[in-house]
Amino acid sequence: MSETASTRTPLSPTLRSSLTRYKERGGADRAELDAVLDAGLICHLGVVLHGTPVVIPTIYGRDGDTLYLHGSTGSGNLRAAMTGDVSLTVTHVEGIVYARSAMHFSMNYRSAVIHGRPVELTDPDERMHALQMIVDQAAPGAWDAVRSPNKKELAATLVLALDLTEASVKTRAGGPRDEADDIAAGGVWAGVLPMRQVFDAPIPADDLAPGIETPAHVLRRCSDTVALA
Amino acid sequence: MSETASTRTPLSPTLRSSLTRYKERGGADRAELDAVLDAGLICHLGVVLHGTPVVIPTIYGRDGDTLYLHGSTGSGNLRAAMTGDVSLTVTHVEGIVYARSAMHFSMNYRSAVIHGRPVELTDPDERMHALQMIVDQAAPGAWDAVRSPNKKELAATLVLALDLTEASVKTRAGGPRDEADDIAAGGVWAGVLPMRQVFDAPIPADDLAPGIETPAHVLRRCSDTVALA
Repeated sequence: MSETASTRTPLSPTLRSSLTRYKERGGADRAELDAVLDAGLICHLGVVLHGTPVVIPTIYGRDGDTLYLHGSTGSGNLRAAMTGDVSLTVTHVEGIVYARSAMHFSMNYRSAVIHGRPVELTDPDERMHALQMIVDQAAPGAWDAVRSPNKKELAATLVLALDLTEASVKTRAGGPRDEADDIAAGGVWAGVLPMRQVFDAPIPADDLAPGIETPAHVLRRCSDTVALA
Repeated sequence: MSETASTRTPLSPTLRSSLTRYKERGGADRAELDAVLDAGLICHLGVVLHGTPVVIPTIYGRDGDTLYLHGSTGSGNLRAAMTGDVSLTVTHVEGIVYARSAMHFSMNYRSAVIHGRPVELTDPDERMHALQMIVDQAAPGAWDAVRSPNKKELAATLVLALDLTEASVKTRAGGPRDEADDIAAGGVWAGVLPMRQVFDAPIPADDLAPGIETPAHVLRRCSDTVALA
């Protein structure tokens, strides 16, 4: 996140060279990447299409060192993602940082940026697994309760896998970092306004037959508070 | 948002040609764009840096037909945004769509995608106004309560303006769009799990002097429910 008066950039000017190679690292760093990705509902996928960047929101899934994307076989954006590198970003905004000066206003957040070249999955089992991971990410517990993709649907769907090797995580947490003079001057409130995402009561489909109860995997989420996606 | 089994793409394969020229349109379309932008806290900015797309989360502001960005004068990403086109996306996820089949799972959302070439603002008044718009977007009502940017801070800050002429808004709302066969088969719950973003009680800074009360412009937000950013 760009800070209002920051002298640090949101990400390094030589971004790709500064990215962590996560496969070569373990422990906390990798756990942090997984946590950011697993808490997300959507990512912002950046591709270059006809020489111009295009950033689109899309759902995704993850299993181990692989992130999965999918879309229509007719999607120009996904096609572009297979012929050039992509940048894929998941951001959770967790609070608004109120400072004593305008230029120190900021956001508390966690974000993961992945770079790489997605590859198309062609193996039927791998494709089905990827689609399950994507549905699991959006709606945990739902996959087993619903009809699986059929032949016609699978034929119309492009499934991509993106290696998580080249990735970085950035976070900002805590209160404002004000200038000493501004703190000394006093009189201005400073602090953090925390934010989170909540689910409200599920709304049954208009065409839902009577007697079908809301399943536990849906109800469970209503009491959850999840990180912002 | 990519839909699980959708035959439509998240955005048109020939994206730029399909974008709406908002300045040439009025009324509902333009109001919809403004509503999506004004409800957001961050955008995802896509630039091309060294031939590769880079997508970063950053805060922004808007006034009329102009969107404002800022960052360090040392930011390679912002510099890249001035020498090539950008794609800037604001997305609000508003619900998870539970369908009767895996491939019809989706998200309800509103998103705005802007394309263009940001220009650097050099006029002092324009720069100050842009910074105010950015702080106003993140923290409405805060600008007048805090110290204004000083000469040193301004010298270290790059302020960019992006015209909103070339933009598109996409939304998905309502329940699942299941296959007739799956609806007829029955037995599977379907519906929407609505989501929203909430603010929790403000946390004063550790170094806040005693006796400084939380201002009304902060307290006001705690009772707000805002769209997801």
